[in-house]
Amino acid sequence: MSGDRGAGKGAAPCHVVKEEVIAEGRWLKMEKTTYVDGGGTTRIWETAKRTTRKRDSCADGVGIIAILKRTLHIDCVVLVKQFRPPMGRHTLEFPAGLLDENESMEAAALRELKEETGYIGEVVGTSPVSCLDPGLSNCTTHVVMVNINGDDPENLNPTQQLGEVTSVGCSGWDAVAGMQWLAYHGWDAVASIPWLGCSGWTSGPAVLLWSRIWPMGLALTMMSLTLQCGKTV
Amino acid sequence: MSGDRGAGKGAAPCHVVKEEVIAEGRWLKMEKTTYVDGGGTTRIWETAKRTTRKRDSCADGVGIIAILKRTLHIDCVVLVKQFRPPMGRHTLEFPAGLLDENESMEAAALRELKEETGYIGEVVGTSPVSCLDPGLSNCTTHVVMVNINGDDPENLNPTQQLGEVTSVGCSGWDAVAGMQWLAYHGWDAVASIPWLGCSGWTSGPAVLLWSRIWPMGLALTMMSLTLQCGKTV
Repeated sequence: MSGDRGAGKGAAPCHVVKEEVIAEGRWLKMEKTTYVDGGGTTRIWETAKRTTRKRDSCADGVGIIAILKRTLHIDCVVLVKQFRPPMGRHTLEFPAGLLDENESMEAAALRELKEETGYIGEVVGTSPVSCLDPGLSNCTTHVVMVNINGDDPENLNPTQQLGEVTSVGCSGWDAVAGMQWLAYHGWDAVASIPWLGCSGWTSGPAVLLWSRIWPMGLALTMMSLTLQCGKTV
Repeated sequence: MSGDRGAGKGAAPCHVVKEEVIAEGRWLKMEKTTYVDGGGTTRIWETAKRTTRKRDSCADGVGIIAILKRTLHIDCVVLVKQFRPPMGRHTLEFPAGLLDENESMEAAALRELKEETGYIGEVVGTSPVSCLDPGLSNCTTHVVMVNINGDDPENLNPTQQLGEVTSVGCSGWDAVAGMQWLAYHGWDAVASIPWLGCSGWTSGPAVLLWSRIWPMGLALTMMSLTLQCGKTV
């Protein structure tokens, strides 16, 4: 396999030369990015950026992988459903949100989880900053892993605190069975999923799954298949 | 848990009223999206869209989860490293790319995999369309699952076909050990990862991990921990 410097021997490493604003709104801006590729050629890219990133922060927000743990229940991954104007429809996503000024990723994760699902969780892990759609934007997120004690009385009847965020639903998701089912049957058949446990989901507009959920489902499926193979050996 | 219609009883379901172009480039445009939320209130959003989506297509591109299978080796997830102008740095991602005109997602996945990694694969599964960063853009992707027969002579010395894409490297990734390591040690320590097997990676600019890789790593870690628990029972 080749290295990471492209075809040009002795060429300057890839780098951005300049970034020029084409248009700027309240929350979003569009830039013309001039860069040098690995072969030493100067090229143009077009980039979207949020205008809301906080000073001294390398991330725009957090994505939250929250595991609902209850006695005598299979652990569940908590997902939220909401109307997303850019998509013009509802989506099913990991809970997520933007960082407030001077807010740690842990605090932002617990705040967003509480707002979007009503659950009170405990942070058990964090990722370094990671990118969301690096061919399109500079947007970055931390992935924060959270455990929810579902036996705790405060988590028995979680109440969403939506504010400006509209149409959020949430559901405990049997991680292994659910993701496996989804991998094999496809999302179009969502209306027939019995364990979604949120009747409103089946009568609403079509729901689109967040791309980040698929790799998790696939990994769970891979491992589950490994377990199955193990039994036959 | 509340339903998906927001606070307003009898309010019209969430919907987009109009989309107005603020700026349009060659590959990207920015729009002002007027929508009605679940409470019946009209609000404004700002949206980024690719201008390159093909007619009659609901997806912009494909993301490829490719498993390299070799006799007497642990299965590996194939990742690519490339310079991303919007990020101003290198990223580590699943192979991915945009759909060509009238191209199926399966054909696009095998083409992009070949271009970016040199491997010839076989499609074993596809996802419905899913969204990448639905709070920012309407961009969508299919996740295509691909198996690579690493014992096949044509896959013993894969050669990248980079064209305009610059600075792509690739590496077989021991899925379980690698993702677990990453989850516990963090990406900042990447230079010391022995199994990356691509020396250029440790001397280049800092590399940013694609957000979609984390959920997969976490799932593998979760399942691995389950296996470990099983052994102690």
